[in-house]
Amino acid sequence: MDFKSWSTERASHFELCAKKALPPDNRLPWKLHEAMRYAVLDGGKRIRPLLAYAAGELVGAKEEALDHIALALEYIHSYSLVHDDMPCMDNDTLRRGKLTTHKKYGEAMGMLTGDALQAQAFYELTQTKLAGDQIAVLVKVLATAAGSAGMCGGQAVDLLSVHQKLDLDTLTLMHRLKTGAMIRASALMGLYAGEQLPPPALIGLIIQYADAIGLAFQVIDDILDVTADTAVLGKTAGKDAAEDKPTYVSILGLNQSRIMAQNEINRALEALKSIEELSEIYQGKTTRLEEIARYILSRDH
Amino acid sequence: MDFKSWSTERASHFELCAKKALPPDNRLPWKLHEAMRYAVLDGGKRIRPLLAYAAGELVGAKEEALDHIALALEYIHSYSLVHDDMPCMDNDTLRRGKLTTHKKYGEAMGMLTGDALQAQAFYELTQTKLAGDQIAVLVKVLATAAGSAGMCGGQAVDLLSVHQKLDLDTLTLMHRLKTGAMIRASALMGLYAGEQLPPPALIGLIIQYADAIGLAFQVIDDILDVTADTAVLGKTAGKDAAEDKPTYVSILGLNQSRIMAQNEINRALEALKSIEELSEIYQGKTTRLEEIARYILSRDH
Repeated sequence: MDFKSWSTERASHFELCAKKALPPDNRLPWKLHEAMRYAVLDGGKRIRPLLAYAAGELVGAKEEALDHIALALEYIHSYSLVHDDMPCMDNDTLRRGKLTTHKKYGEAMGMLTGDALQAQAFYELTQTKLAGDQIAVLVKVLATAAGSAGMCGGQAVDLLSVHQKLDLDTLTLMHRLKTGAMIRASALMGLYAGEQLPPPALIGLIIQYADAIGLAFQVIDDILDVTADTAVLGKTAGKDAAEDKPTYVSILGLNQSRIMAQNEINRALEALKSIEELSEIYQGKTTRLEEIARYILSRDH
Repeated sequence: MDFKSWSTERASHFELCAKKALPPDNRLPWKLHEAMRYAVLDGGKRIRPLLAYAAGELVGAKEEALDHIALALEYIHSYSLVHDDMPCMDNDTLRRGKLTTHKKYGEAMGMLTGDALQAQAFYELTQTKLAGDQIAVLVKVLATAAGSAGMCGGQAVDLLSVHQKLDLDTLTLMHRLKTGAMIRASALMGLYAGEQLPPPALIGLIIQYADAIGLAFQVIDDILDVTADTAVLGKTAGKDAAEDKPTYVSILGLNQSRIMAQNEINRALEALKSIEELSEIYQGKTTRLEEIARYILSRDH
């Protein structure tokens, strides 16, 4: 199966899982459940689920466990978008080509939707049917990636950096937290879903891979904010410049940004090559991870 | 030790644990960490930690595990207060006698503070040094109580009920979710920290106890909103009536509300009596739980 077919199939499968797992909107409090479903369903590139599925393939993880991990990752990601779009943060009206959650359901409900999705994410991890020790590790990895040492921390740095002149290192630190931490967690959690504890060498290489594609993802995001238009992007283009936010493009320029993204993807591919050399168990099993890396470089939205 | 000494000692002990466990405000992103510490430290009645410690005593749970459980409970509670106080929700300026978190740090940081505290709560559960299976149960109980089937769900019902005439049953359902779910979780998580899985009869009785004091707590809250003044309360008094929110006092009147609170406390005390009769293991070990119930009835803030 080529990457497009695989990723489309995985995304549809994920959508079915999410429809089944999210609290139904005919159960009280139905309005909150409706908003949670609105925030998660029918949208997004599902990069984090794809990463978890692809990393899980490396270690022969069971699909059922990966499904719940994918849900947990996407709930956290979705909640962060809902909160990020609110007036006190980015004040955005469009997301994934539709109204942002708070625009549709009101600000208070938007905040609660995000809050409830975060709790639901940790609940999902308890539904994996993995051993207790594995669930505990998954909770720890996800909580670390989502909290102040990860995503929320990156958003705080981002918040404090508007109208500031950031250097490249600080910008990169911010993104390593803001988006990188959850991308790293996505790949790691796929590994931890395997029956055996992954060997440290594999963990190290998956981190190298994930950190590289995470950074490339962000650089491409900054490039698309300048080069793509709103219709293709599904969110408001040109916002970074309008808001005087530091980006890779504003620091490095378009050309150097493209080179940086390519370099990061190369680093990611090198990590995958080292994984294949690590043991014959992994041989031929990094294809999906490689395709994800190449997709991130070539995406147009 | 009498209740006042015990609860003061536990609250100081909790404070020390929280000071140590919360990310230090000299670590990046320091502003977020400062706000997280501001939201949690130096405030509150610590009812949820007290309940976890008291329930843990019943089953001989280790203090270290209870400490992390107490932290997790209070992080969730604190985050809910931070978000609840924001302009799009209750728009409050005072909490525990000091400025609300978003008033001190700004709205965006307030939202992130709450979000990061929720993640930190689940992280704490992985630090209990309990068996993986126990951690998984604790995560499940906390996530259920905090999410749309619990606290967030109750807040959503609350949100949709302003300016509505609620009947007593709907008001009670709302509070069972909004505050009751986390109070139930506090007692349950104390039990689950014991070395053995608690017997179903004990779980049932602890739930009866916790649900009764949870309801009494809310009825007393509604009474205090009418009868106490802002200085003693540490938050703005008289807000419910000013905002035309349905309360026990508005539906039942002051007198009947007081009787209802007393009845719920009686139900809680009966549950404790049944626990003592369940097995000699529990004899003489429900004293703290009883004192908490009596305190809830008599509190003036």
